Amino acid sequence: MDYQTDTVGILGLGLIGGSLARALRDSGFARHFIGYGYRDTSLRRGVELGVIDEYTLDLEALVARSDILVVCAPTLVAAELLVKILEHTRGVTDGPVITDAASVKGNLLAAALDAGAGEMPPRLVLGHPIAGSERSGVDASDATLFRNHRVILTPVDGNDPSAVALVRDMWQSTGAEVVSMSVAEHDRVLAATSHLPHMLAYGLVDALAQSDASEDIFRCAAGGFRDFTRIASSDPIMWRDIAMANSDALLAAIDTFSAHLGTLREAVANKDAEALEATFSRAKAARDEFAALLSERSKPSGENA
Amino acid sequence: MDYQTDTVGILGLGLIGGSLARALRDSGFARHFIGYGYRDTSLRRGVELGVIDEYTLDLEALVARSDILVVCAPTLVAAELLVKILEHTRGVTDGPVITDAASVKGNLLAAALDAGAGEMPPRLVLGHPIAGSERSGVDASDATLFRNHRVILTPVDGNDPSAVALVRDMWQSTGAEVVSMSVAEHDRVLAATSHLPHMLAYGLVDALAQSDASEDIFRCAAGGFRDFTRIASSDPIMWRDIAMANSDALLAAIDTFSAHLGTLREAVANKDAEALEATFSRAKAARDEFAALLSERSKPSGENA
Repeated sequence: MDYQTDTVGILGLGLIGGSLARALRDSGFARHFIGYGYRDTSLRRGVELGVIDEYTLDLEALVARSDILVVCAPTLVAAELLVKILEHTRGVTDGPVITDAASVKGNLLAAALDAGAGEMPPRLVLGHPIAGSERSGVDASDATLFRNHRVILTPVDGNDPSAVALVRDMWQSTGAEVVSMSVAEHDRVLAATSHLPHMLAYGLVDALAQSDASEDIFRCAAGGFRDFTRIASSDPIMWRDIAMANSDALLAAIDTFSAHLGTLREAVANKDAEALEATFSRAKAARDEFAALLSERSKPSGENA
Repeated sequence: MDYQTDTVGILGLGLIGGSLARALRDSGFARHFIGYGYRDTSLRRGVELGVIDEYTLDLEALVARSDILVVCAPTLVAAELLVKILEHTRGVTDGPVITDAASVKGNLLAAALDAGAGEMPPRLVLGHPIAGSERSGVDASDATLFRNHRVILTPVDGNDPSAVALVRDMWQSTGAEVVSMSVAEHDRVLAATSHLPHMLAYGLVDALAQSDASEDIFRCAAGGFRDFTRIASSDPIMWRDIAMANSDALLAAIDTFSAHLGTLREAVANKDAEALEATFSRAKAARDEFAALLSERSKPSGENA
């Protein structure tokens, strides 16, 4: 088989890391997969499942043996791991290509610049697959998780073009559609589409749960409320870390939203039929367009293969 | 067949009115169904589909021939129709039982009190089935729409107990679970579980659509965002009217939510890990409990029959 690269090191073997290894094995992108983590529980399971070929708890060995390292740990652990990797690759020009799958990019960029005394390591290309599942852990890993999903890469000036190309090829081989933007733009877009909605859902459910009518409230809520609050069932630790790592962009998103909600509140208070209808109609048009786009994108298609 | 009542008049033959007629015919609650509306388009279709037996555009005739009148029009039209019905039943003690299916109860109560010079008509029992569908119109009507769903009735002092019992029996025969609360409590609960979430979803989508990054935002949003914003695809006219009819309870709900969001914003700004984790954990616990409740409720069960 004609592999694009030989050995992939996966740091953190959960849903994302496991799914990536499975997808890259299926696509023939790489030959050999090594797992790494702080504890061996999920790593042993990964070998049992055939998701990875072997694992190590020795980061230096992993770095030495891998052609590409993918940090698949949650936001704050990812930053920690990235710094440790960069300690092992400092001054090395032909070391492994390094990338990640974490939800926030700004904190990783800052950590990398810190570790490199202000210089971005040329073979580090930060990325983020916009995919997930209600399930978690390597047992839930799925080779098709990224198919027809977006992956955002945030290359920077000074990146080694071959490193950017390898990371792009890696994600494309999973069936994902790769787009590029700046770190700041990524964090702003994710704050808007994901981090802010999580804050609104968590905030709403918490407000209702603390209400003295909470029993009636949850007793009488229906399907629309279930969909709207589904993301409030997400992992609190993961979201605590994302909120802290992307606090600047998230604060800006909260403030923009609060201003809009304030305008809507005034329209309700003034019973301003025209303003209410205009806002709701604009929102419905935008949302219908988005839903059509998403539905189009998720159709099975050879074009993304 | 042993019917509980003879003739049901349905005012407004859309998804809710059509589904109610189908369910009541299937359950044997009533023998004869008459549709009423301002225009005959959906009414003719209702007869074609066998949802209703006949229709009339003459409200006085409908009132004279019905044992129970169910106003199934949207919020503001429902208030208008209710006032017209009450003009025809003023001073009549054995007229039809009157009920409705609109989303807000306070405006209907106010309209009824206005029409009755401060006296609540004893045979008027306001109600609200917590059920719906993304589809609308009589063609989408479904005899099982209310099965295992809640119906809230808001009986008042001075209600004729036999009228309350008939409305309760009517909804129970559709397979719904009937609960009672005050008009104010209904409007507060619905503001929290439905009206506020719609404002948040409409407000968020409108804010994002107006952002100068809106193209990237919608391009990179995924499944969680789709679920969260599903209700922003609801009918703008219907929601304009609900927001105006329930403005007091909605404003209170917006203010409670805004205060919670403000607290969450402070926790993000201060990178207060403990406060963030506590809020998210409380919300996740409440949401998981609600989802389990809803899932339990929607299981097929003879207990609700």
